[in-house]
Amino acid sequence: MFWSKGFIPTLKETPQEAESISHQLMLRAGLIRMLMAGVYSYLPLGLKVLNNIQKIIRAEMDACGASELLLPALQPQELWTKSGRDKDMGEVMIKFTDRRQRKICLGPTHEEVITDLAKNHISSYKQLPLILYQIQTKFRDELRPRFGLIRACEFIMKDAYSFDQDQNGLDKNYQAMYNAYNRIFKRCGLKFLVTQADPGVMGGTVSHEFMVPAEDGEDIVLSCPECKLQQTQKTENDEFCPKCNTKLEKINTIEVGHIFQLGTKYSSMLGANFLDAQGKQREIIMGCYGIGVSRLIPAVIAQNHDNQGITWPKELSPYKIIILPLDVTDKKIRKVAKDIHKELEENGIEALFDDRDERAGVKFKDADLLGISLQVIIGKESLKKNKIELKIRKDNRKIIKSKEGILKEIKRLIHG
Amino acid sequence: MFWSKGFIPTLKETPQEAESISHQLMLRAGLIRMLMAGVYSYLPLGLKVLNNIQKIIRAEMDACGASELLLPALQPQELWTKSGRDKDMGEVMIKFTDRRQRKICLGPTHEEVITDLAKNHISSYKQLPLILYQIQTKFRDELRPRFGLIRACEFIMKDAYSFDQDQNGLDKNYQAMYNAYNRIFKRCGLKFLVTQADPGVMGGTVSHEFMVPAEDGEDIVLSCPECKLQQTQKTENDEFCPKCNTKLEKINTIEVGHIFQLGTKYSSMLGANFLDAQGKQREIIMGCYGIGVSRLIPAVIAQNHDNQGITWPKELSPYKIIILPLDVTDKKIRKVAKDIHKELEENGIEALFDDRDERAGVKFKDADLLGISLQVIIGKESLKKNKIELKIRKDNRKIIKSKEGILKEIKRLIHG
Repeated sequence: MFWSKGFIPTLKETPQEAESISHQLMLRAGLIRMLMAGVYSYLPLGLKVLNNIQKIIRAEMDACGASELLLPALQPQELWTKSGRDKDMGEVMIKFTDRRQRKICLGPTHEEVITDLAKNHISSYKQLPLILYQIQTKFRDELRPRFGLIRACEFIMKDAYSFDQDQNGLDKNYQAMYNAYNRIFKRCGLKFLVTQADPGVMGGTVSHEFMVPAEDGEDIVLSCPECKLQQTQKTENDEFCPKCNTKLEKINTIEVGHIFQLGTKYSSMLGANFLDAQGKQREIIMGCYGIGVSRLIPAVIAQNHDNQGITWPKELSPYKIIILPLDVTDKKIRKVAKDIHKELEENGIEALFDDRDERAGVKFKDADLLGISLQVIIGKESLKKNKIELKIRKDNRKIIKSKEGILKEIKRLIHG
Repeated sequence: MFWSKGFIPTLKETPQEAESISHQLMLRAGLIRMLMAGVYSYLPLGLKVLNNIQKIIRAEMDACGASELLLPALQPQELWTKSGRDKDMGEVMIKFTDRRQRKICLGPTHEEVITDLAKNHISSYKQLPLILYQIQTKFRDELRPRFGLIRACEFIMKDAYSFDQDQNGLDKNYQAMYNAYNRIFKRCGLKFLVTQADPGVMGGTVSHEFMVPAEDGEDIVLSCPECKLQQTQKTENDEFCPKCNTKLEKINTIEVGHIFQLGTKYSSMLGANFLDAQGKQREIIMGCYGIGVSRLIPAVIAQNHDNQGITWPKELSPYKIIILPLDVTDKKIRKVAKDIHKELEENGIEALFDDRDERAGVKFKDADLLGISLQVIIGKESLKKNKIELKIRKDNRKIIKSKEGILKEIKRLIHG
């Protein structure tokens, strides 16, 4: 991809609207743009990161035997009256009446819709266990949207739902999801805490949250320095460790995942039953498993940046490598850069080619800001010595190789 | 994928709600389910077809040098007042006021949002030409939603937008898109007509529609039997060929694509300008290019089915092959089926394994209904002769091969 043919509007100045580091960097690196408060467009680089995250999530969900589907954003309000959650949701749920006088809402979550689907199509224990998931856009009428994609009115979630005959089945699926979540967040380059959480309006009993420590995170995790117990903060009061009564430490975090054992809360209220092996009618046992997909981008940036910009973990980098010919008016530099580009393409390595006629300083700054995990720098002085420079963005380490040895080294760094 | 672990609720009976053949088959084959009139869930098989269509579209868009982004569904109504299209859209646009008293709409299309983005980030001729596209969910308050995904309230579109310095640039991009559309619809297995169309509320001058002839299509194409002129019907009156005055024939079609030369309609109203090489401020010349992505599924089915069910074109088939062990209680049949499954997986060929303990008749009927393009049938009698049967769903042609030769033949049929 050539920089000049794409749409990567980087910013030198930090936009006023940005309240957190991750939000500033997302705007400056041209990943997103605000359409209105809480509502963002994903520009090409932002969408590429989003797709990389989704790819990881899909791989790990599929490995759990989950099947992907796609549920609608428009939902009949009636379903929420049946589940009794219309009041719990309150004003956060966007509602309207359509031309045919149907009362419709924009789904802030999909327990009702999926339970309704299960009710209509699961009738026998032979169809269980089952895990369904989707990656889909959700809507919330946030009173105070903040921090870019962290608290937005329109956002992307992965929500999975498990259906089982009994608690034993739910325990197994819950554990499988718990493990998958650990793998997903690790692959996203995150350090995170797992806390016992309050199921809240979701209902059910057991629940865990996956929290990413970040300076400007809004969610507080209480951690006991003595017995290492960790839980999410529920009240504004000072809390003491329920196990050993030590004063708890507060850690600012971003919530990126939340899993729940729902039990029969939804199947009971919406009538989702099955016939067991003895021909007896029973309620389906459910679990639900959410990941804040779009929110993962700022969470990852919060933990992966330096003074110059973003430092993407390898698997999330929007391109595998950025090619920096330091002077595109120089024939030799241009030829070497093009040759490398061609070789990378032939090897299936997606590269961003900075073909702009800009000063080296501008290119360096933009490349560091974008945070693509590997840079290949082609400059006049080095070329005279038949040398090409590589820079690993994560730690800004530089590697010098001969022109002939560069491709091998790039492949080693990307695949190794 | 094992049938029993997935979610493929096929139906023997035709649901009453289904008005057209494609709608009936989508419901019966377990591709979609209605949540309310005009609003559908994509079940796993339906989503796989949708993804296959999107893959084709992305490949052809990227080949045109277009960059993918993702714009929000929530839009400020203010933008539509500026463009003057709020009145044109009328009641079809879903509008509401949020908690902060912001007037918001759900985007039925994105010319306003993309032009606003271009206005803020394109300033120089050096940034042109540019093509941006997205595959995204759109909303319409349809008074009479019909035919399943054909006229829905929530649907998926690919919308692309080109930005140019001059008419010459627009002509080039328009032609590139026109060619890409021909390739996309061909790869989707469609026979289609291209008509000169009325730009309507989109504005602009030149416009073409891509129409798929289908018995229950709602859009009428008028075709001249004499001079072969084809155009979309604009009025209910009998029309005669504007070229040779012959009585026109009516063809029922489904509109799947529509491309427009917008010119400066939006850039002028929303103030999207650039500085040309002479430093003079000019309005950006735009084109827009839509494909009804979700609508393509029923359009393809309308042209690709027989009495037994769907006959997917190879590139759209939800799985490349379905494995039918006719009796899963038979050890030998099960072993051969599993071996074939394993070999296919090792060769990267995605297969659906019908592991249900059902009669052969049920499996045959479901496999034909689903329409996966290739079936491998493992039965007791054939196995005794060391034979395995393949069935090409498109024409129901059967091929018998020895157990040892089966993989080679499958690979030939899928990749050849």
